[in-house]
Amino acid sequence: MQKEIPYKIYLEESEMPKAWYNVRADMKNKPAPLLNPGTLQKMTLDELSGVFCRELAQQELDETTAYFDIPKEILDFYKMYRPSPLVRAYFLEKALGTPAHIYYKFEGNNTSGSHKLNSAIAQAYYAKKQGLKGVTTETGAGQWGTALSMACSYFNLDCQVYMVKVSYEQKPFRREVMRTYGAKVTPSPSMETEVGRRINAEFPGTNGSLGCAISEAVEAAVSQDGYRYVLGSVLSQVLLHQSVIGLETKAALDKYGIKADIIIGCAGGGSNLGGLMAPFAGEMLRGEADYRIIAVEPKSCPSLTRGKYAYDFCDTGKVCPLAKMYTLGSSFMPSPNHAGGLRYHGMSSVVSQLYDDGYIEATSVEQTEVFKAAQMFARIEGTLPAPESSHAIKVAIDEALKCKETGESKNIVFGLTGTGYFDMYAYAAYNDGKMGDYIPTDEDIQKSLSKLPKV
Amino acid sequence: MQKEIPYKIYLEESEMPKAWYNVRADMKNKPAPLLNPGTLQKMTLDELSGVFCRELAQQELDETTAYFDIPKEILDFYKMYRPSPLVRAYFLEKALGTPAHIYYKFEGNNTSGSHKLNSAIAQAYYAKKQGLKGVTTETGAGQWGTALSMACSYFNLDCQVYMVKVSYEQKPFRREVMRTYGAKVTPSPSMETEVGRRINAEFPGTNGSLGCAISEAVEAAVSQDGYRYVLGSVLSQVLLHQSVIGLETKAALDKYGIKADIIIGCAGGGSNLGGLMAPFAGEMLRGEADYRIIAVEPKSCPSLTRGKYAYDFCDTGKVCPLAKMYTLGSSFMPSPNHAGGLRYHGMSSVVSQLYDDGYIEATSVEQTEVFKAAQMFARIEGTLPAPESSHAIKVAIDEALKCKETGESKNIVFGLTGTGYFDMYAYAAYNDGKMGDYIPTDEDIQKSLSKLPKV
Repeated sequence: MQKEIPYKIYLEESEMPKAWYNVRADMKNKPAPLLNPGTLQKMTLDELSGVFCRELAQQELDETTAYFDIPKEILDFYKMYRPSPLVRAYFLEKALGTPAHIYYKFEGNNTSGSHKLNSAIAQAYYAKKQGLKGVTTETGAGQWGTALSMACSYFNLDCQVYMVKVSYEQKPFRREVMRTYGAKVTPSPSMETEVGRRINAEFPGTNGSLGCAISEAVEAAVSQDGYRYVLGSVLSQVLLHQSVIGLETKAALDKYGIKADIIIGCAGGGSNLGGLMAPFAGEMLRGEADYRIIAVEPKSCPSLTRGKYAYDFCDTGKVCPLAKMYTLGSSFMPSPNHAGGLRYHGMSSVVSQLYDDGYIEATSVEQTEVFKAAQMFARIEGTLPAPESSHAIKVAIDEALKCKETGESKNIVFGLTGTGYFDMYAYAAYNDGKMGDYIPTDEDIQKSLSKLPKV
Repeated sequence: MQKEIPYKIYLEESEMPKAWYNVRADMKNKPAPLLNPGTLQKMTLDELSGVFCRELAQQELDETTAYFDIPKEILDFYKMYRPSPLVRAYFLEKALGTPAHIYYKFEGNNTSGSHKLNSAIAQAYYAKKQGLKGVTTETGAGQWGTALSMACSYFNLDCQVYMVKVSYEQKPFRREVMRTYGAKVTPSPSMETEVGRRINAEFPGTNGSLGCAISEAVEAAVSQDGYRYVLGSVLSQVLLHQSVIGLETKAALDKYGIKADIIIGCAGGGSNLGGLMAPFAGEMLRGEADYRIIAVEPKSCPSLTRGKYAYDFCDTGKVCPLAKMYTLGSSFMPSPNHAGGLRYHGMSSVVSQLYDDGYIEATSVEQTEVFKAAQMFARIEGTLPAPESSHAIKVAIDEALKCKETGESKNIVFGLTGTGYFDMYAYAAYNDGKMGDYIPTDEDIQKSLSKLPKV
């Protein structure tokens, strides 16, 4: 007999995962290797270690080790804000009148407000262990920068964040959270790097872009002794760390004898979905179980649903390694969308390969539908969701309504990656009826895809 | 042998309190009764029921019932975001090098970001039960208004919030959260009430004040059919609902065989401290145990430490009942302080009486010291605290450092009432070194105390 399921399932500390799971170990078709952007040859450990910490570079390249022990220092930090609750959405089920059981893994209960902290603390730990002075990174909307600031503060590492200028000016709260944690936040393009000065000279008064901020952060890392560059999504190492989301989710479900039917995650670079689905995908890859895993992306930036599976640059500045991924082309300019975390032209190689092999489905949704679902969720389940997370909410509701039609009691699990506290301009636009939908034309996409590197 | 204490103690759903505790039932010296501002006679149930919902008015006047069953509808809502964690501050203890054990009850893990939701949902429930159309209230910084918006949205009640104009304009994020939950937010003074129009005519371009917003909210409640006014602090009914904080805290401590030595809470109107301390004060009142209970207030608004125990108006508009309380006088203008929730001239009658009877200590702290403690806490324990909550942090750290001197392993428990997400202007001022301390002179206080009503 199934135990009564509480509103929130919290694992005991003793039940928390002690190792991260590397889904690549169970993949028959491995993700294609990273390539050196200059030579187009496979990136070596030494090359990668010039940009990333050595142990992180090793994790990036390791396709065979299934489990990596989580170092004690990181486990301790995880205990500050993990385990995150797996919430049974009783209220939402009732409001929808669905026989489906809906669960969500809520990653927003930490000051950074999102799942990004799971990898930030790992990357800061390895930087500290290597004896580095600090790390550099870029941030757009600010979720990743905030998480990294917290992590660096904990390990007393210098943290230099290049923040896209328009966000720096329009999101002063995010900036101040980072400063409170001791990070140095520089609006990008700045006058502190060569590339920043060049861009400022070429485009006076520019608002900046993520591509430019990446280029500045990489330059800052390689030009200072004792610094490395860190990144919050896309990379396989990030998905490895984020597997803690899926492992906790699976442990909580197992504890109550629940078998998930559908796993839903929003997908920008792939860090959240990749982490949430990891142990479930692992079971599929090993032929032990079957699940529907659904990646949800915005219609404004549909890399899986309308992109091409090809080698591409990870950054618009073209300084990072090339990755094979579903991509819209590194020159693709996503139209305005308030889910800043999903405005990325490509998709993690791991997620891309699993999608290409048919283990993952993908769908795309319009912004206004997403905010409608977000507002409904906030009012019914209490928590104000991040616009990114709300993509998953929208599809979870759709699937639950399908169950209502068919009368099936499916178990639907989705990732609620973060809170919407710092996205109130977006909610204001929605509240005021001033939000639109922006869908790229086929020509837009073909134009940027035509500039893919020849590999 | 004591069980190993986890970082976060979560009660099981089955261990959650099923009843609120009314500390007045165990008080030998009851708080003085509320008086009708017109007649100066004891407020009757009928009089109170004209402004408040009837069941809430009953709770307000009941000094003998020790336990009130929490209605099932409220218990269900509590399960959405409660139990809140009791956190063992292992990292802070280590950083301080203290033998003390520090615990904090964290009430910020809900979208309203504070403990205010505990009473908001209760007040909304009784309004719905009474068949009302909606409720009106005022909000300054916005914590209470946000909580009430969420609660009203849950019960499908109309929610009209009069928000001090300067906050309405300077805190657009808070405003948008309320609107997302369906509340009607009106900048005060408005042109929608008689008192608002009068004040606008008298002081063109005024920024508004809490006193004015209260007056508008009360007028809106009594002039619309099916509406009542609700308030987020000070009242005994609010302390009753907030006892859930203390009851959970006590249950979590008991579960691990921990006896608290010191209980610390910030105190503005008294809702948080009153709730946190309730079961502990009850044990003291019944002679069953002894605790040090410390109320912490800002030096800029020191009602307990520098005020007078006397009857006073609860609002500057003088429309609400008179209460006997420690007060600085209803005309006292607190100097600028970023802990908006602590800028109240008086203190809950319950807290005031217990303080007067020696069950509670009080201390006051300077703003810059508070933010220093807040930043330290954020960096060490991860969570970015609200300025209000940080008053308790400051004193908890001081007490832990005293233990370091004496070598005592005291158990220190404090209330972390909320997060600082919506207080980043305050943190920015601190980060930029632009924060000052503002302490009223004896003359300032005497001036407002000289205007106390003659009762």
